[in-house]
Amino acid sequence: MDALTATLTVLDYGAVAVFGATGAIAAARRQHDIITFGFFAAVTGVGGGTLRDLLLDTDVFWVAKPSYLVACLAAAAAVWVFGVGATRFRLLLWLDALGMAAYALVGAAKAQALGAPPFSCVVMGVLTATFGGVIRDVLAEEPSVLLRRELAVTPVLLGASTFVGLTELGAPLGLAAMVGFVSAFGVRAGAILQGWSLPGFRGRTPSPH
Amino acid sequence: MDALTATLTVLDYGAVAVFGATGAIAAARRQHDIITFGFFAAVTGVGGGTLRDLLLDTDVFWVAKPSYLVACLAAAAAVWVFGVGATRFRLLLWLDALGMAAYALVGAAKAQALGAPPFSCVVMGVLTATFGGVIRDVLAEEPSVLLRRELAVTPVLLGASTFVGLTELGAPLGLAAMVGFVSAFGVRAGAILQGWSLPGFRGRTPSPH
Amino acid sequence: MDALTATLTVLDYGAVAVFGATGAIAAARRQHDIITFGFFAAVTGVGGGTLRDLLLDTDVFWVAKPSYLVACLAAAAAVWVFGVGATRFRLLLWLDALGMAAYALVGAAKAQALGAPPFSCVVMGVLTATFGGVIRDVLAEEPSVLLRRELAVTPVLLGASTFVGLTELGAPLGLAAMVGFVSAFGVRAGAILQGWSLPGFRGRTPSPH
Repeated sequence: MDALTATLTVLDYGAVAVFGATGAIAAARRQHDIITFGFFAAVTGVGGGTLRDLLLDTDVFWVAKPSYLVACLAAAAAVWVFGVGATRFRLLLWLDALGMAAYALVGAAKAQALGAPPFSCVVMGVLTATFGGVIRDVLAEEPSVLLRRELAVTPVLLGASTFVGLTELGAPLGLAAMVGFVSAFGVRAGAILQGWSLPGFRGRTPSPH
Repeated sequence: MDALTATLTVLDYGAVAVFGATGAIAAARRQHDIITFGFFAAVTGVGGGTLRDLLLDTDVFWVAKPSYLVACLAAAAAVWVFGVGATRFRLLLWLDALGMAAYALVGAAKAQALGAPPFSCVVMGVLTATFGGVIRDVLAEEPSVLLRRELAVTPVLLGASTFVGLTELGAPLGLAAMVGFVSAFGVRAGAILQGWSLPGFRGRTPSPH
Repeated sequence: MDALTATLTVLDYGAVAVFGATGAIAAARRQHDIITFGFFAAVTGVGGGTLRDLLLDTDVFWVAKPSYLVACLAAAAAVWVFGVGATRFRLLLWLDALGMAAYALVGAAKAQALGAPPFSCVVMGVLTATFGGVIRDVLAEEPSVLLRRELAVTPVLLGASTFVGLTELGAPLGLAAMVGFVSAFGVRAGAILQGWSLPGFRGRTPSPH
């Protein structure tokens, strides 16, 4: 394995582990047992990539290579053993921002490799980076990442669009990945540090059912 | 493209766009931003057909043809720009009834074309027409369409059963589709106009966990 | 069909029907109509196996053989007609424990037959036995089986691990199945009778968003 492949492999497992840790934290908030920690970590860590692979009709990435699940379980064990105080949570928030930026590109690139049209590649990038968190929030009965004000889907959408747009325009892969990653991470950083958000809808809505 | 194909194509995209608009309205109720509008519109618009295609192990219909997603996003943009007052919501409710009646048949017919047994074809029709709304309600944390008293699944079940039953009995496709569509739309119209509902369970239940 | 195959077939349909009945009970608690009963029974009865088959990229088991759905609907009809008092609920709880123990092995064995690595086979066993209930609880807006204190995922995990571990070590299939089944059912029985639970997390957690 050369240095680039090794780096990408570490990043790949790292992102899954960080997503898994956010799942374990959802379990920790309600004082769940270690098995529930593992379940939430696994679902959150691999959920987005699983949906992407099902939609693209390709082998689900962790089934033949369950070491991805082991990474999630290791993250769950770490949260269990060490706990997550304010400082460590802050660190995890930043690692999660890095992981989401990376996974937006990973998801889009996998869809490109399988010949999906550009627009679908962007969608796959967004789903890969966000859907694990969506499932986590539904299962943990927490307010969904979709329903929070702070920007979370937007950075991922920006990064995936930039990456796919640049590669479609013929930019070198490395450049497209770098610009896509920086734009996703930059906007997410603004959301974390400055509470960046988009204006909400102000128009008329019908009364609920 | 002949006139029939053109009509069917318009109906197909129209149904997806109407479902998408109901997703955008769920986002509008909570004053979400434009990105969340798009996410809800897309998930609601294509969710049912996506599940159908995964279960039938066929290509997910929008992946190679993302114009379906564009229809959802256009619907989301329209809800954002124009808002949805009481009159427009009433119109949308009726368009949604038309869309669900049509999609019950579309889903069942696709399953038939892929050789599924009749009972499974009915199930695919029901899932295609209803599951986008189920996902929308789970993600938006609204009372699920499943949990409302008003008939919503029943019309779709009736329409899909009628369509599949008639084609199994050898009726011409056009006739089966027309009777199926009218029965689904008719019962749904009764639910909207008259609050039609089936009697609820009145028997003994165990106490909750 | 020989005696063994006949027994396994009865067990298979029996487990799906019992899971389906727990779905119908979720519908019964809220006095839903017969159509919603059927929907919940079907989703709960076949949900876990459906996810397993999608992840393993094999034909979804009930699509070509909808008699599994018929078993779910029969269970829903039985709950509707006869109601579920305390005694019958207790019986169902035990049948559910038997069904989950059996399905943990069924799911793992199917993954083994398709050549998945041992760790993924365990995961498939757990998903097959538990995910129908997870979907039921999300759709019924009940506290998820994942969020209850009582052991539910743990027995299934133990049974699937034991079964896969023993077969990997070369134990005869019948022996591995028996030990796996007994360990899963035994721990679940302890949870039902004695309220067995694992210790919850006691460490630091960050404040919620």
